[in-house]
Amino acid sequence: MAYEPRHMKWWGWGDPNVTFHSEAHPGFWPYAKAQLGIEGDAPRTPPAPLESVQLPDAAIHSRFLAEMKSALRADQICDSREERVVHAYGKGFRDLFRMRRGSAEGAPDLVLYPEGEDDVVLILRAAARHDVMIIPFGGGSNISGCLERMENRRMAASLDMRRMRRVLAVDAESFTARVEAGAFGPDLEEQLAAHGMTLGHFPDSFLHSTLGGWIATRSAGMQSDKYGKIEDMVISLRMVTPDGVLATRTVPKSANGIDVNHICIGSEGTLGVITEATMRVHPCPEQRIVPAYLFPDFAGGIAAMHECTRRECVPSMVRLNDPDKTALSIAFKPPSSRLSQAVSNAFKGYLRAKGFDLPRACLALTAFEGPKTNVARQLREVSAIYRKFGGVSLGSGSGKSFEATKYDFPHIRDFLLDHDVTADVSETSTVWANILPLYHATMNAIRSRVAESGVESWAGCHISHTYCSGASVYFTFGFRQQAGHEMEQYLCVKRAAQQAFIDNGATLSHHHAVGTEHLPWLSADISPLGVKAVAALKRGLDPANIMNPGRLQPSAEPFEDWYRITSHLNPETRVKVAHSGPSER
Amino acid sequence: MAYEPRHMKWWGWGDPNVTFHSEAHPGFWPYAKAQLGIEGDAPRTPPAPLESVQLPDAAIHSRFLAEMKSALRADQICDSREERVVHAYGKGFRDLFRMRRGSAEGAPDLVLYPEGEDDVVLILRAAARHDVMIIPFGGGSNISGCLERMENRRMAASLDMRRMRRVLAVDAESFTARVEAGAFGPDLEEQLAAHGMTLGHFPDSFLHSTLGGWIATRSAGMQSDKYGKIEDMVISLRMVTPDGVLATRTVPKSANGIDVNHICIGSEGTLGVITEATMRVHPCPEQRIVPAYLFPDFAGGIAAMHECTRRECVPSMVRLNDPDKTALSIAFKPPSSRLSQAVSNAFKGYLRAKGFDLPRACLALTAFEGPKTNVARQLREVSAIYRKFGGVSLGSGSGKSFEATKYDFPHIRDFLLDHDVTADVSETSTVWANILPLYHATMNAIRSRVAESGVESWAGCHISHTYCSGASVYFTFGFRQQAGHEMEQYLCVKRAAQQAFIDNGATLSHHHAVGTEHLPWLSADISPLGVKAVAALKRGLDPANIMNPGRLQPSAEPFEDWYRITSHLNPETRVKVAHSGPSER
Repeated sequence: MAYEPRHMKWWGWGDPNVTFHSEAHPGFWPYAKAQLGIEGDAPRTPPAPLESVQLPDAAIHSRFLAEMKSALRADQICDSREERVVHAYGKGFRDLFRMRRGSAEGAPDLVLYPEGEDDVVLILRAAARHDVMIIPFGGGSNISGCLERMENRRMAASLDMRRMRRVLAVDAESFTARVEAGAFGPDLEEQLAAHGMTLGHFPDSFLHSTLGGWIATRSAGMQSDKYGKIEDMVISLRMVTPDGVLATRTVPKSANGIDVNHICIGSEGTLGVITEATMRVHPCPEQRIVPAYLFPDFAGGIAAMHECTRRECVPSMVRLNDPDKTALSIAFKPPSSRLSQAVSNAFKGYLRAKGFDLPRACLALTAFEGPKTNVARQLREVSAIYRKFGGVSLGSGSGKSFEATKYDFPHIRDFLLDHDVTADVSETSTVWANILPLYHATMNAIRSRVAESGVESWAGCHISHTYCSGASVYFTFGFRQQAGHEMEQYLCVKRAAQQAFIDNGATLSHHHAVGTEHLPWLSADISPLGVKAVAALKRGLDPANIMNPGRLQPSAEPFEDWYRITSHLNPETRVKVAHSGPSER
Repeated sequence: MAYEPRHMKWWGWGDPNVTFHSEAHPGFWPYAKAQLGIEGDAPRTPPAPLESVQLPDAAIHSRFLAEMKSALRADQICDSREERVVHAYGKGFRDLFRMRRGSAEGAPDLVLYPEGEDDVVLILRAAARHDVMIIPFGGGSNISGCLERMENRRMAASLDMRRMRRVLAVDAESFTARVEAGAFGPDLEEQLAAHGMTLGHFPDSFLHSTLGGWIATRSAGMQSDKYGKIEDMVISLRMVTPDGVLATRTVPKSANGIDVNHICIGSEGTLGVITEATMRVHPCPEQRIVPAYLFPDFAGGIAAMHECTRRECVPSMVRLNDPDKTALSIAFKPPSSRLSQAVSNAFKGYLRAKGFDLPRACLALTAFEGPKTNVARQLREVSAIYRKFGGVSLGSGSGKSFEATKYDFPHIRDFLLDHDVTADVSETSTVWANILPLYHATMNAIRSRVAESGVESWAGCHISHTYCSGASVYFTFGFRQQAGHEMEQYLCVKRAAQQAFIDNGATLSHHHAVGTEHLPWLSADISPLGVKAVAALKRGLDPANIMNPGRLQPSAEPFEDWYRITSHLNPETRVKVAHSGPSER
């Protein structure tokens, strides 16, 4: 194949050639330092060089390898240090922290690159025969711990899907596209654009994630209000299991019993490998605009978003920041000219005159796209609703800056990790009536846990992805690392955030999947019988448990296991487990 | 409980006090007779009286009964002839034909009326212990064979849910309602209306079906274009399995692995009993209008519906009839005044002048509901689109007549069966590009199979339930019965229609479920691996196979089994099985 999407940095986010330059965002680091109580030059800990990464010896099952060699081309089978390290983890905090410290114990023994469904079928058959674990790998962007091997008893092969990335067919009349699962966001959109179509799925990870990964994890894109979550877009799919191919029909809707599409969607690689899907697509929008607004406070912004759903007038995207996230967004802006600064100062005066208390103000980026007449009408109707809740238009400047940098945010984490600052996210969804209680409870949980470790915290929140009944609520947090206790400190905060979700009627994740990171809360989320149902599917379709073992099946000691993943880095966590209350078990 | 929804006629559709009066629709029977080649007074075969219905002796498991008697009140346990007969079947052609002939071999041995989830839990536990089959029963309106017992080896109890019919809670801020599964349509809407809310689910069976039944079968209401199919409305649910309760959380969306809501939705009673669900609800619409339109032909009407989805301007309902269904609708109209007849004649002249060839014209009932401003805008936009495709407005007269009689259609079948005319339906969905090919293939299959039996047929079609990618396609057919071969004749036609769906890229049913009637096509529809996945769930959650056995699990000889259900009524079908082509096996 001529073109093949590149792997991300093995130790961080994004293309190896792309680095986060804090000079391009001169306000950011001073803001972060002030928030986190960092004075002067912070210590810097760069990632360990690739050569020094601790990599377990590859345990190769020779008969499996021989079968692979006879069935595949040599360039489809990789066992180099770099390939194994790149496929060791996703991009969660635990993943990056271990990687930067040179620890790749999650690495597979081998990496395989199938180039068609037949390859996948024969790999899975051979794997089942020889008891080799298979870990499907899309872009490697997952941050919930979906990708590392969870046991060392058996050989593990990473199945990298990036060579299966073609749009196989577009039905321009029915608005459907049949796409191979390894297609990355930009590549997929480019192929669809040639037919005048778009999938409309733009997650933050868009540049570095694949269709199959989105489906296996129940991803949501930035414009899900218009286009739906990925599970709403799947019309039919094909999933290779160790026992053959599960395939559904390309029909809009059915009453054919239990919807087996939904058995594959969200299966996180535990039942099989999704090889292709026929997706609902849309004509490329005639128009797209991204105006920004400022609300006097978070509650007002939430009420305005809610009113849009009530009035059946929902923009394709609303991203409402709380005051802290608003401050971060402003700090993150590229440097402005003296003229625009003058305008900005005049505008601040105007806002104060309108009764705004600026530190409480909340930024709402709002996108409209579709036929021109619809965009114009929606803009008019939504602006009127926003005004009712005190919203003030900022014009399209912030929107343009958001559009230009919308995929850059994950790079910040690498910059912060360089400076010994831990940063991560936890997100969930809840019903409208519960958004503010959940928000306060979770912010409080995060901040108090960070404070317990003796450092200052920054935490912010944004609301995105609205529904008739509620919305997703997305938390971002950061704090200075406690040297020698970095992992323990992180786990303490992460656990508090997730526990706040479950204790306050929200779900373990709205679009980041379960993986290992959220597994201890699965049983509380879908009930023990729900876990049993998922286990029944696993037993039926993958009786040898070769598909991504360790996911979706919490053990009897889920928190013990949760700490154990990185226990060599945080030996004190046993104590924490013993101290956890009954509600957390 | 003070009020309890009544059972339908044991031998037909609807409330026992409601009869179809052909005098109220004076054009209908002459139209039908002309179409079906019936001259003079047709023979009449009334249903057998209840006393003469052949009912197998009840096989009662005494220890199970003793446990029920100690746990439930006496009026929750019924074994009368009438109760057993009422619960013997749903309302498909096979069901009604057998019932009218006095054959109730599908009847349960006992009927139980739980009044809360605890009752359901203890009934299922006892049933699992004593190997008693449980058949969940909502309104009994299913026409796909979901309700009769499929084996006689074990005792069977029908679990009638109608006493669990409360709206337990309404969250008017988040637009959610927690509802017991036994709530019937009118009762549910009445309880929601007290909160200013509506579920927006109005299937043809609305008066006689329940929330739990809708969810277990993946029902669709008339206004699904606005409100979605029932599976789109479920936010969380509770399902009692023989091993305990599966319960999900009331959150708008999640990424918590495989969506276990979708394991319960469409499970057709095979895994457990849905006891309640939290549903997405909507404020009662400010306005509702149902204008009717006439298109020059079916293709033009379909193109107009399609254009509405492309332009993101979809009415809450469009029901587009083909020419035959249009003629039936006109024949079904209540008698009109001389004045309105004069108007009608003048209008026919106008249509001819506009180039309409009236026998090819197609009626499209279109509903708009929601905030007044939205209704006005949508009406304007849709009317403009319709005009582009030759659509002419008929005003609101036909719409009003549709609104008044929309739940009456199923009564016609009883009237026809009285007159020895077989009538039934088959419905499916397919992508836009395939609607017309599927339509022609299926109409051809139905008509030619009827012709083979030596009689004339009437067959019509309507399109409802549109999606971005396609629509549902709904066929209705009728023909004179071949005396002594009625069942065989019916099965021949039904099989041809269903096979046409599968051979032409459509699904076995869009909203009527699999049951026994569509089971032979399940494997072709969801693939053998899909069937295996469903079987794995069954094994895991109901290892004793007590929950509605015989559904969702095709045997090695699905067509043999399909004929066998009513083989005592059609001894010649063995020959037909032997003659069926390989594509049908």
